[in-house]
Amino acid sequence: MMHVVCLDLEGVLIPEIWKGVASLTGIESLNRTTRDEPDYDKLMHYRLEILDRHRIGMNEIRQVIGSIQPLEGAVAFLDWLRGRTQVIILSDTFYEFAQPLLGKLNHPTIFCHNLEIDSDARITGYTLRQKDQKRKAVEALRSLNYEVISAGDSYNDLSMLEASNHGILFHPPEQIVRDFPQFPVTLSYSALGKELADRISSDPYPG
Amino acid sequence: MMHVVCLDLEGVLIPEIWKGVASLTGIESLNRTTRDEPDYDKLMHYRLEILDRHRIGMNEIRQVIGSIQPLEGAVAFLDWLRGRTQVIILSDTFYEFAQPLLGKLNHPTIFCHNLEIDSDARITGYTLRQKDQKRKAVEALRSLNYEVISAGDSYNDLSMLEASNHGILFHPPEQIVRDFPQFPVTLSYSALGKELADRISSDPYPG
Repeated sequence: MMHVVCLDLEGVLIPEIWKGVASLTGIESLNRTTRDEPDYDKLMHYRLEILDRHRIGMNEIRQVIGSIQPLEGAVAFLDWLRGRTQVIILSDTFYEFAQPLLGKLNHPTIFCHNLEIDSDARITGYTLRQKDQKRKAVEALRSLNYEVISAGDSYNDLSMLEASNHGILFHPPEQIVRDFPQFPVTLSYSALGKELADRISSDPYPG
Repeated sequence: MMHVVCLDLEGVLIPEIWKGVASLTGIESLNRTTRDEPDYDKLMHYRLEILDRHRIGMNEIRQVIGSIQPLEGAVAFLDWLRGRTQVIILSDTFYEFAQPLLGKLNHPTIFCHNLEIDSDARITGYTLRQKDQKRKAVEALRSLNYEVISAGDSYNDLSMLEASNHGILFHPPEQIVRDFPQFPVTLSYSALGKELADRISSDPYPG
């Protein structure tokens, strides 16, 4: 059986991008994430409205994102995994945000969304490539006869985990642990690596 | 519009693996490829029968594959492309063959097939993940609202090129050029990079 491992990006391999933007700009209200507001569309309209009110465009946000580093151990973990099986990052972030970070992760394949940016580098909107894209990507991979194992940390990962042959939680909030006892909970790359190695019949993760 | 570029592996990024096996083992009859025999299943049974007759197992073939290098310019070209869009390799090779070469290509995502290997490292058979997997992968990606651009060199790439929004031939045999005039023909990474850059609205390929 051939496997594809689908990983969430923010909270699993890199810090939350919007928290970084909130921190650098000092705009507290940008600290909301999908953990606080499960309706992603609602959350994004809220964020873009705030950015526009503060006249923050792509150039300002690129500065923040350029200074974000992958989570400690993330690069080694991802390199290990990619040497053993196929990995696709499924993220509800935007390619324009993710791009400078993807280089730091050695360019894994990512499926995400796009921002709409005008000629003055103002973020005018966003394009969701499709609704519930994480679940649909898992279903598409299963239609190609792949066994899909996925790992994520948040509300927008749950349909991905449910659609997969095996779903794994990584550093989830307590509410999710309580509501979704069917998914194993991992709190380190070592533990996540062990869960994955068992599934793909690999040697254990040395981290 | 978000893009995924699907690339064939052998003949596009690395030399034909079976030609390498033929060359090292001196078994001329292993030089057949999908260019000579479009029926892939027939070709594979023919190959495995020859290997078994000569008592050549995974260990011997790994030696050959370990000495194969990517085509000249392939790594720089693939790195350039992966910095600009999403790339998935669609290959009818086997993961067990491809793995040592994937590291040399900086671990792109690959969809391919699996060999069946027994405990004595004898290749006992193979598992096609699915029939016409290249076309099905393109269709799956399009169902995720991706615009798919694909490039390949041989008969087993034609259904992939046809299913894509844009298909590009790379170093194809003359017969394919004659029979499929709808696909642009490229003979260098520079030309292929130009075709791709036009489609994904990227800066030109500097190679």
